[in-house]
Amino acid sequence: MSTFDLNNPKSDEASASADPMLAAAEAGQLARLICAPNPAVGCALISQDSRRAIGHTQQVGGPHAEVMSLRAAVAQGMDIQGSTAYVTMEPCSHHGRTPPCCDALVVAGVRKVVVATRDPNPLVAGRGIEKLRAAGIEVEVLSADHEVTRAVRELNIGFFSRMIRGTPWVRMKMAASLDGTTALANGTSQWITSEESRTDGHGWRARACAVLTGIGTVLEDDPMLDVRLVPATRQPHLVIVDSRLETPPDARLFQPAAHGLPRQVWIYCARPGATRQAALEALGAQIRCLPDANGKVDLGAMLKDLAQREVNELHLEAGYKLNGSFLRAGLVDECLLYLAPTLLGQGAGISNFGPLQQLGEGLPLQFQSVERVGKDLRILARGVDRDAFLKG
Amino acid sequence: MSTFDLNNPKSDEASASADPMLAAAEAGQLARLICAPNPAVGCALISQDSRRAIGHTQQVGGPHAEVMSLRAAVAQGMDIQGSTAYVTMEPCSHHGRTPPCCDALVVAGVRKVVVATRDPNPLVAGRGIEKLRAAGIEVEVLSADHEVTRAVRELNIGFFSRMIRGTPWVRMKMAASLDGTTALANGTSQWITSEESRTDGHGWRARACAVLTGIGTVLEDDPMLDVRLVPATRQPHLVIVDSRLETPPDARLFQPAAHGLPRQVWIYCARPGATRQAALEALGAQIRCLPDANGKVDLGAMLKDLAQREVNELHLEAGYKLNGSFLRAGLVDECLLYLAPTLLGQGAGISNFGPLQQLGEGLPLQFQSVERVGKDLRILARGVDRDAFLKG
Repeated sequence: MSTFDLNNPKSDEASASADPMLAAAEAGQLARLICAPNPAVGCALISQDSRRAIGHTQQVGGPHAEVMSLRAAVAQGMDIQGSTAYVTMEPCSHHGRTPPCCDALVVAGVRKVVVATRDPNPLVAGRGIEKLRAAGIEVEVLSADHEVTRAVRELNIGFFSRMIRGTPWVRMKMAASLDGTTALANGTSQWITSEESRTDGHGWRARACAVLTGIGTVLEDDPMLDVRLVPATRQPHLVIVDSRLETPPDARLFQPAAHGLPRQVWIYCARPGATRQAALEALGAQIRCLPDANGKVDLGAMLKDLAQREVNELHLEAGYKLNGSFLRAGLVDECLLYLAPTLLGQGAGISNFGPLQQLGEGLPLQFQSVERVGKDLRILARGVDRDAFLKG
Repeated sequence: MSTFDLNNPKSDEASASADPMLAAAEAGQLARLICAPNPAVGCALISQDSRRAIGHTQQVGGPHAEVMSLRAAVAQGMDIQGSTAYVTMEPCSHHGRTPPCCDALVVAGVRKVVVATRDPNPLVAGRGIEKLRAAGIEVEVLSADHEVTRAVRELNIGFFSRMIRGTPWVRMKMAASLDGTTALANGTSQWITSEESRTDGHGWRARACAVLTGIGTVLEDDPMLDVRLVPATRQPHLVIVDSRLETPPDARLFQPAAHGLPRQVWIYCARPGATRQAALEALGAQIRCLPDANGKVDLGAMLKDLAQREVNELHLEAGYKLNGSFLRAGLVDECLLYLAPTLLGQGAGISNFGPLQQLGEGLPLQFQSVERVGKDLRILARGVDRDAFLKG
């Protein structure tokens, strides 16, 4: 695990690390909640007379880390000529929503660039480094097992997943009593975990590109599934798995999300229905029909489609049936489990996965972190080898 | 929580704390696995010329901490006259299995005694302190919120429970997947947790005075329930809840326990049966009939009986039915839960407690400690206010 606390990035220049690559990594962490679907990147520019300017990725369409640090340098009156840039990810070489950062570094007269990790984006994938070298800039790439390299990839696990696997990183969020009960037999489930855990859960929603739930949860709980309990500068989009297109047009999820921030609502169905579709589209929802052989939504195809929609991290917040469907399809990468300090006995469990015939058929995980959140425990457990793509 | 690590006491004089009461407390921790049903007590004797002798409670029938430290002092040629004794629990004033420690301290010429906590044993309960003062010894008692006082009571939670509540401290041990499954639908449960967890579990058996299970587990798993995987100098006794006296005479639990150490087998039933009883008694089992109104074993009455049998900590290692019965009867003090990093989905849960009508009817706990054990997590969660008796 990284020694960085992703949830508590150092927030000001004064407290930034002396090591320029660490300072760049810390800056990158600040971008985590604002920059999706772009990767969270930081840059520290060190001039020949040892002055320093730091920047990180802005909101989508805004400048990347390199440009932000160049701007900061100019604002400080720093002499950029001959400076060294420490960037947590390979500078982009292509014209995307912004011009290539490589060009900006070359034009500014940077002498050397130290890169923590290559960009997994096939549109970059080493071309940024080549372009810099072609312009006479010295480029150093840290090894894959460098602390900062691992932390940067971990921070951008969803971006790496989308670029390399072509699917989002799927994090299944659950809340249960210590004995694994998520609802009493009569359906009561609000609230098993504490307000602190629910707030913490909104922090995890905030870092995701999209929140996903099923029609069952929509019909039973009529949830908003927006980021309300923590500050936000963007809202994750909302994905509904709704085979028969039963989302009610008066569902609360169509109301404006908190903080006055826009989001899109994407509904995946298995059976189109022109009238219902028209009613939902009139509310702004985008509907796609991706049936599998059993007349359900093809979850694997949906994930590929969500990657096309630039979803890096997908926050799954569903009931035990849809959780079970994701588990059966082998699509869960990570579990985020809030455990309340209570025993509730019989009731609904976390999923309807199984019944299995052998213990080895379970989803193998490894504990990533365990933290106390209020009176509860928050357990992050990752599927064994699900993050193999990070280690390339 | 205490700053002492109860599972890793400092094991030699050289590493003992400079503070004499801390050194006494550390010595007391060494007694934990050997002294039951006596409390684990430590004593540090400091002579007028600042020499030190340390002792702790020995096996039942052997010397207590005070006598051990006096013996160590004599062996070292220390001048005991005018010395100060730091004892983690009030010295005993009565003739039990050994003569009163108060008398030994008086005879030895100790000038002052510092006591971390009074003895909750109604046969002592302040009389030890009175006796010392009557003999002209200065006695100081630490306050209830002193770090050592809290740690000593915590270390002896079972002894305090038996003395004050008249029942053992009941610790329910469970092993489950992260989603709370303790066995697959086809019954498979060996092994959900790792070998490290099973070894750790034997360490918790070892500190208990008795291990309890139900007839269901005896018939299904035919377990030994002895302390095998860790060193032991005594075996906890074995308690079987067996309403209809169905324990098979050829059950493995009647075989000699590991390490060649003796233990007693106590079977509690609700319906006596002369023939079966005779067969089990021939194997050394002791049988008591304590029926409740429903023809089951009266678990509350059984706990009182186990306290009479000097059971301090009772280690409950049962299946989901008996776990549910203990929970319904409100008899569980603490949960020791090993969570394996896997999702197993549908199957048996931890207990058949409930179904509840409201979340507030659950057993309220608070997390006491969370540790990684091998690949698993070990969670110790205590019933809210179940340890109120410790704070008196």
